[in-house]
Amino acid sequence: MTAKNQPISGNDLARFSGPNTFMRLPSAGRLQGLDVAVVGVPVDIGTSWRSGTRFGPKQIRAESAMIRPYNMATGAAPFDSLQVADIGDLAINTFSLKDTIRIISESYDAILNAGALPMAMGGDHSITLPILRSIARRHGPVALVHVDAHADVNDEMFGERETHGTVFRRAYEEGLINPEKTYQIGIRGTGYAATDFKEAAGWGFQQFPAHDLWGRDLSQMAAEIRRDIGDRPVYVTFDIDGLDPAYAPGTGTPEIGGLTTPQALQLIRALRGAPIVGCDLVEVSPPYDPSGNTALTGANILYELLCILPGVEYR
Amino acid sequence: MTAKNQPISGNDLARFSGPNTFMRLPSAGRLQGLDVAVVGVPVDIGTSWRSGTRFGPKQIRAESAMIRPYNMATGAAPFDSLQVADIGDLAINTFSLKDTIRIISESYDAILNAGALPMAMGGDHSITLPILRSIARRHGPVALVHVDAHADVNDEMFGERETHGTVFRRAYEEGLINPEKTYQIGIRGTGYAATDFKEAAGWGFQQFPAHDLWGRDLSQMAAEIRRDIGDRPVYVTFDIDGLDPAYAPGTGTPEIGGLTTPQALQLIRALRGAPIVGCDLVEVSPPYDPSGNTALTGANILYELLCILPGVEYR
Amino acid sequence: MTAKNQPISGNDLARFSGPNTFMRLPSAGRLQGLDVAVVGVPVDIGTSWRSGTRFGPKQIRAESAMIRPYNMATGAAPFDSLQVADIGDLAINTFSLKDTIRIISESYDAILNAGALPMAMGGDHSITLPILRSIARRHGPVALVHVDAHADVNDEMFGERETHGTVFRRAYEEGLINPEKTYQIGIRGTGYAATDFKEAAGWGFQQFPAHDLWGRDLSQMAAEIRRDIGDRPVYVTFDIDGLDPAYAPGTGTPEIGGLTTPQALQLIRALRGAPIVGCDLVEVSPPYDPSGNTALTGANILYELLCILPGVEYR
Amino acid sequence: MTAKNQPISGNDLARFSGPNTFMRLPSAGRLQGLDVAVVGVPVDIGTSWRSGTRFGPKQIRAESAMIRPYNMATGAAPFDSLQVADIGDLAINTFSLKDTIRIISESYDAILNAGALPMAMGGDHSITLPILRSIARRHGPVALVHVDAHADVNDEMFGERETHGTVFRRAYEEGLINPEKTYQIGIRGTGYAATDFKEAAGWGFQQFPAHDLWGRDLSQMAAEIRRDIGDRPVYVTFDIDGLDPAYAPGTGTPEIGGLTTPQALQLIRALRGAPIVGCDLVEVSPPYDPSGNTALTGANILYELLCILPGVEYR
Amino acid sequence: MTAKNQPISGNDLARFSGPNTFMRLPSAGRLQGLDVAVVGVPVDIGTSWRSGTRFGPKQIRAESAMIRPYNMATGAAPFDSLQVADIGDLAINTFSLKDTIRIISESYDAILNAGALPMAMGGDHSITLPILRSIARRHGPVALVHVDAHADVNDEMFGERETHGTVFRRAYEEGLINPEKTYQIGIRGTGYAATDFKEAAGWGFQQFPAHDLWGRDLSQMAAEIRRDIGDRPVYVTFDIDGLDPAYAPGTGTPEIGGLTTPQALQLIRALRGAPIVGCDLVEVSPPYDPSGNTALTGANILYELLCILPGVEYR
Amino acid sequence: MTAKNQPISGNDLARFSGPNTFMRLPSAGRLQGLDVAVVGVPVDIGTSWRSGTRFGPKQIRAESAMIRPYNMATGAAPFDSLQVADIGDLAINTFSLKDTIRIISESYDAILNAGALPMAMGGDHSITLPILRSIARRHGPVALVHVDAHADVNDEMFGERETHGTVFRRAYEEGLINPEKTYQIGIRGTGYAATDFKEAAGWGFQQFPAHDLWGRDLSQMAAEIRRDIGDRPVYVTFDIDGLDPAYAPGTGTPEIGGLTTPQALQLIRALRGAPIVGCDLVEVSPPYDPSGNTALTGANILYELLCILPGVEYR
Ligand SMILES: [Mn+2]
Ligand SMILES: [Mn+2]
Ligand SMILES: [Mn+2]
Ligand SMILES: [Mn+2]
Ligand SMILES: [Mn+2]
Ligand SMILES: [Mn+2]
Ligand SMILES: [Mn+2]
Ligand SMILES: [Mn+2]
Ligand SMILES: [Mn+2]
Ligand SMILES: [Mn+2]
Ligand SMILES: [Mn+2]
Ligand SMILES: [Mn+2]
Repeated sequence: MTAKNQPISGNDLARFSGPNTFMRLPSAGRLQGLDVAVVGVPVDIGTSWRSGTRFGPKQIRAESAMIRPYNMATGAAPFDSLQVADIGDLAINTFSLKDTIRIISESYDAILNAGALPMAMGGDHSITLPILRSIARRHGPVALVHVDAHADVNDEMFGERETHGTVFRRAYEEGLINPEKTYQIGIRGTGYAATDFKEAAGWGFQQFPAHDLWGRDLSQMAAEIRRDIGDRPVYVTFDIDGLDPAYAPGTGTPEIGGLTTPQALQLIRALRGAPIVGCDLVEVSPPYDPSGNTALTGANILYELLCILPGVEYR
Repeated sequence: MTAKNQPISGNDLARFSGPNTFMRLPSAGRLQGLDVAVVGVPVDIGTSWRSGTRFGPKQIRAESAMIRPYNMATGAAPFDSLQVADIGDLAINTFSLKDTIRIISESYDAILNAGALPMAMGGDHSITLPILRSIARRHGPVALVHVDAHADVNDEMFGERETHGTVFRRAYEEGLINPEKTYQIGIRGTGYAATDFKEAAGWGFQQFPAHDLWGRDLSQMAAEIRRDIGDRPVYVTFDIDGLDPAYAPGTGTPEIGGLTTPQALQLIRALRGAPIVGCDLVEVSPPYDPSGNTALTGANILYELLCILPGVEYR
Repeated sequence: MTAKNQPISGNDLARFSGPNTFMRLPSAGRLQGLDVAVVGVPVDIGTSWRSGTRFGPKQIRAESAMIRPYNMATGAAPFDSLQVADIGDLAINTFSLKDTIRIISESYDAILNAGALPMAMGGDHSITLPILRSIARRHGPVALVHVDAHADVNDEMFGERETHGTVFRRAYEEGLINPEKTYQIGIRGTGYAATDFKEAAGWGFQQFPAHDLWGRDLSQMAAEIRRDIGDRPVYVTFDIDGLDPAYAPGTGTPEIGGLTTPQALQLIRALRGAPIVGCDLVEVSPPYDPSGNTALTGANILYELLCILPGVEYR
Repeated sequence: MTAKNQPISGNDLARFSGPNTFMRLPSAGRLQGLDVAVVGVPVDIGTSWRSGTRFGPKQIRAESAMIRPYNMATGAAPFDSLQVADIGDLAINTFSLKDTIRIISESYDAILNAGALPMAMGGDHSITLPILRSIARRHGPVALVHVDAHADVNDEMFGERETHGTVFRRAYEEGLINPEKTYQIGIRGTGYAATDFKEAAGWGFQQFPAHDLWGRDLSQMAAEIRRDIGDRPVYVTFDIDGLDPAYAPGTGTPEIGGLTTPQALQLIRALRGAPIVGCDLVEVSPPYDPSGNTALTGANILYELLCILPGVEYR
Repeated sequence: MTAKNQPISGNDLARFSGPNTFMRLPSAGRLQGLDVAVVGVPVDIGTSWRSGTRFGPKQIRAESAMIRPYNMATGAAPFDSLQVADIGDLAINTFSLKDTIRIISESYDAILNAGALPMAMGGDHSITLPILRSIARRHGPVALVHVDAHADVNDEMFGERETHGTVFRRAYEEGLINPEKTYQIGIRGTGYAATDFKEAAGWGFQQFPAHDLWGRDLSQMAAEIRRDIGDRPVYVTFDIDGLDPAYAPGTGTPEIGGLTTPQALQLIRALRGAPIVGCDLVEVSPPYDPSGNTALTGANILYELLCILPGVEYR
Repeated sequence: MTAKNQPISGNDLARFSGPNTFMRLPSAGRLQGLDVAVVGVPVDIGTSWRSGTRFGPKQIRAESAMIRPYNMATGAAPFDSLQVADIGDLAINTFSLKDTIRIISESYDAILNAGALPMAMGGDHSITLPILRSIARRHGPVALVHVDAHADVNDEMFGERETHGTVFRRAYEEGLINPEKTYQIGIRGTGYAATDFKEAAGWGFQQFPAHDLWGRDLSQMAAEIRRDIGDRPVYVTFDIDGLDPAYAPGTGTPEIGGLTTPQALQLIRALRGAPIVGCDLVEVSPPYDPSGNTALTGANILYELLCILPGVEYR
């Protein structure tokens, strides 16, 4: 048996040292043999308000140096059983969103063909559409756990049909997701009409507006979602703006009245056992995050997602 | 029927573009025909600790470009039935608090005489005294919903009787407010003696200290306040430091242990139906708000207040 | 009867003026006659990730100018009955952690010998080990209330046995604390193995992981701790990272999912009556705190601790 | 004779008040009658490193409130003889650089057809290509004064031929500029080969590398450029990164060793009398400009350009 | 002979420790025996654009901890021969500029009557008018060295005659200064008409616009000023915005194209021997100075002024 | 012939992507075959004022992604002829300066024994002492070009003899450097006595105080230094605080009146041809560098040093 990749320990090399990879895991030059491929997708040209998410992957990696391998709360030890590596950033075209979307999908096809489960560090939410295209090519329409302040179901923005605000309408139209098994959690704020949310509900999307969740322990709700998913392949997409700006100030389109990090952890931990086939954490914008703590939060959410992937051992 | 003013849609003009008005509403050159006049009152010479609120109106306007017209949580569509415009900033005298207070009151008389309901973007809390003087001239002593970390009932500060810390003692003494229908919500922190709060309670003020509200859903409490107000004209003044500094870091005299934004939204939404005659949001200090999110929070609170004004349609 | 030292009132001298002492109390040139000695311990060379806590005392003092003498929530009036002064900073050796630890302990012996109760403004958590050595020399093994995201029970870090991550293993080994009366509150995050926490539990430490406290009022838990302490001398050490980064962003090793400030206040207030013999507030890092609010929070926590010291009058 | 538009005086309305237009000039709803149209072009999707220039126009306008109408150094009084207004922002497509480039050019055709001289507030430098296309349609190939750290003559970037780094190769290829009358001032830094600069020199571009300008008064050099231009129509494009990062930190691709602001002022002032047909100031990135001073510098450079436009009176 | 006060050495107590006094000099409770009284005047209600200078004295003191007692460039050893202390802040009225101006003047009378030379840490420039009133009461009309971007000779602002922009017109009108011996250095930027500067020139003011000084060594110019002053008592007022924003970003009304710090040092050092009777450094605004370096610059300018005071020994 | 390592081109992979190595060069797992080893030395426990330089290497690497391989000003093409790699960070002991100094020296012995020329990214200046020990072990006493605001020749600080302020006294005492061929450039500011500089001059150090360099082109001075070095092995140590804080704000002990970046480039470029055996760039402190530009400046200085190493081809 080969030993799995391990993060560099903070007791072996000072945390501010070492490679700027996710949790200071090894960089993988090739995909073969990986169970999980952590990948940066440094895009911000799909954003409608503040930009800056192009630096998300770099900053999430930097802050992830704080994270140790064992999850004290749940007992998960993801690096005992999974071969995880940071495969670097996708070589996106920073001047063309359309081309970037093509590149992401092609890159994801390669990751999935190699048998690795992809974990993306965004980048803005526009990256999830090409990801879902690849995911659907491999797994068929998937269940979707979607944490976000926004439903991201616009038809178009400035005539464009592929932006960070149109992802899940496209995913629905293209049959990439199972609408009855699509869970939108934390949506809130303002819109143009009630149909902004209701139309998607009409497609079957299960919506959990933030104001219904305020002050609640989300463990039970998430357990019900997990049961509802059953053995369907499921993709998890976590827009950091699903959290309240108090918890995640460094993002591009913040909305007040969001989730707390305890709620996010309750939610993720209760999804344990679900047949996750991929996940992402998007919309961390470092220029609006002077302390670095939003990137740290994003890194922790990715770590918690890693802890519930199929095959993770708990001890 | 004339169409009402509408905010510029984020799908028509990129949010970082367009006029720097509240929600990118039209600027109004004249008051006639307005149901609601949004007005900036850029004052910080009434502050006792950190200054900077003079840039509050400008930054609140900038961040308000994120807000869309329809309230997804409540169904309010304020621009369907109300004619709302941004009437710009009052031409205060930035070197004299006394003169500024005079100017505010005169300007408010004009707004009220034109039949518009005034919504102020502060500025520090000293602006609310001249506002209440005008309000009382028109409506008589009003009920007052006052969200704040501080009771603002000092007798004087450095010998001055009109500052951001003396507003509500003056309002009481001058008969501008109905003390039995004055609700101080979120007050907390330290003082010089128990009388700092108790004296105002003796005048009839109903006080809701923050530590009694921690962890609670404020909907019911606010519904009781709303019932207690009855059909009396009521003014709502929201000091952003009523919120916890986690939720509103960019303010001049923060106090730990405050309200959350969900609580603020519960509070405001439950006041729906009250005969509001004016409101303000004060104490946003942009130099202490590097992400801009405190101004964004202030903008959202103003929007939520707009949503409960008399005459707003819900759909 | 001599009048006690009083903070300079914000109504006598503008808060941004005056000495940069804790709450603008007098500076004490000598220890005699002091009930409480507030002392800065400006250390950051014991930190493992972000540095900057060397500026903690200076910034905590600056922000403490906001605090008034009377506790509105509890009625505590600490300056009525206690003689409190700021005795300045310990003359640590900023180039040698080992020497600094020696200096702290010698300085604390002097403070304790003079009969003053020491309240430290850190500095990183490594300062608490030499403090506990002095405390134990005077009081024997003490009960310990330890609020922190981290258990700080590493055996060594880079071969060093005295750092901000090894404090409470050393304190246990050296018999400075009563392990059965050691309460670790708010611990969370990631580690290297379950033993990171369990080993200390095996020594008798009572652990209250953050995820068991989410959403709870901590008053009752703290009251039980207070009862369990009984009349044993107790030391309180508050690592600001025990709070969630939303509430205390400016710290060196933040962990998501922490305590709220209301919980911190509930916790401290319920400890009233415990025979506290010293306390500290550590790990405020001003370079990561652009608004200053983390230092303000630290100052308030110190004030709340002052309010529950033996002998404080309530009115 | 109609009075010309005047900036709101800082003595009439506090500078932090009033419309967020350039120098608080009136907003123009229509182009007719304007001599000069100040226009925002809020683009950052043409950038290759840090983004954020989409907020450039908004911040330049905010900081321009400091500028008064009369140029103390030169005696220029641009608002005596020119009708100047801020015509707002172009309605660019923030998700498509290609479409944005089309929109800019169409908008510029309208401005030029109305007879107004366009002054653009960028946005990244990619906006200058469509601007030059319109300029050339109206004026034929123009002389070009190009202040920049970069020559911006790449052939393509990630396969794209229209980005902020390819502008002047395209302009040359398309015959938009007169290569012998193209002056590149302040270029410096690193490249891929000597040809990065030399190829453009071969086209006729006159290059003034920064290291030849260090410590020099640029008045004479600029006077020679002015003479060389003669009576040819000339466009001035000022990339703020032409300045040293000490003088303009808030930009996306800073290069050390650049021009000083005195040099920039010497340069512009010596161009007086040249038949300028348009100008722009690009690459101010507010998220990297915490003090706002880079935007202020950009605003001043635009003002100085305004002062040398044809027809400006000096008194 | 009594030993003079000495700054705490950075080798005795870490620089981030110790009292927050200027250069960590002793605080003086009384004025008697002082040759030089360093005093904070924490005012920002006289500012017309960005506020924040109320925190100037606190931050200048904090950064002054870097400064050692001996001037390596000039050999000045001010603490060998002068008794210098920090006398704290004047108890200004932060809500009334008028009252603050009165307080400053009364306080200065006391300082001057005690025989101490006053060195003020501002605060905005409005503080210099009451200072000059006291200075003139004691010394008669003084020569004035005035470094500034602005002439500060407005007649009124918003009807107020005493603000940071009207100081030197009032000083002229009131006969506080000798107009022929008034030197305005570094003035620049924009105004309302040529008379903004010329009127003061007509009173006799000697003006040295920044654009005449660019790139020059100021030693000779300053030496000529020094000769022109002769043995007249002279007051030096240094507005930090006299420096270029590259050198002093953290100020309220920055103007591009200003002096460099080498020029400021040349200027001050060449004034050695002038019969200085007082000086100030104003307009440092900490909220706009994230690195603290503007306050550091202000502290150094004050130190250099201290080094040229009458009676300073050089070794 | 094997192709040399090349930085990843900004046209192949977006600059915000890719490995966080110096200029995105390959990471070297082994030293063999390297001509130049770029190494991070992330230390800040040797600092006396602001800390934070522990994050220097990480941030310098991040910003170095802007730099392209060819030097437009000089024609240097360092990657044509030298094999350069980033060998990561030294595994320093962040809790013990003494141990860290030992580790650095041992690590440098290994680098030098492998035949690679070491280029260090600091870290504070204390790292240069152990570096010089290794250098001297290999090359004997070396000539030293030392750019700095400070002479760093204290005897001890708080009793410690190895800190960032004592480096060059130790180097002199230990015979690591040739005192007659030691050039201290840019020194300035304040001290405790004239001997602070003069004593080192007495050892033979050639000192070039900043005030003698203001406004000068340094090319000739540096050419003279280069001639004076002759064919002696020379080490170059560049403390970023040698630059003026306008050019390098993000550093721990800034001093006003420093060098400009043009002067730094003139200095380095004129040293071309000197037999350099190693170099470092120290004292970049990211927490005090909100724009990142100080790290960018540090990266460029390292690049310019790389360009003058023996064997570099120019084309
Ligand atoms: Mn989204
Ligand atoms: Mn979202
Ligand atoms: Mn208030
Ligand atoms: Mn308040
Ligand atoms: Mn701890
Ligand atoms: Mn901790
Ligand atoms: Mn350019
Ligand atoms: Mn450029
Ligand atoms: Mn001034
Ligand atoms: Mn000025
Ligand atoms: Mn040094
Ligand atoms: Mn130095």
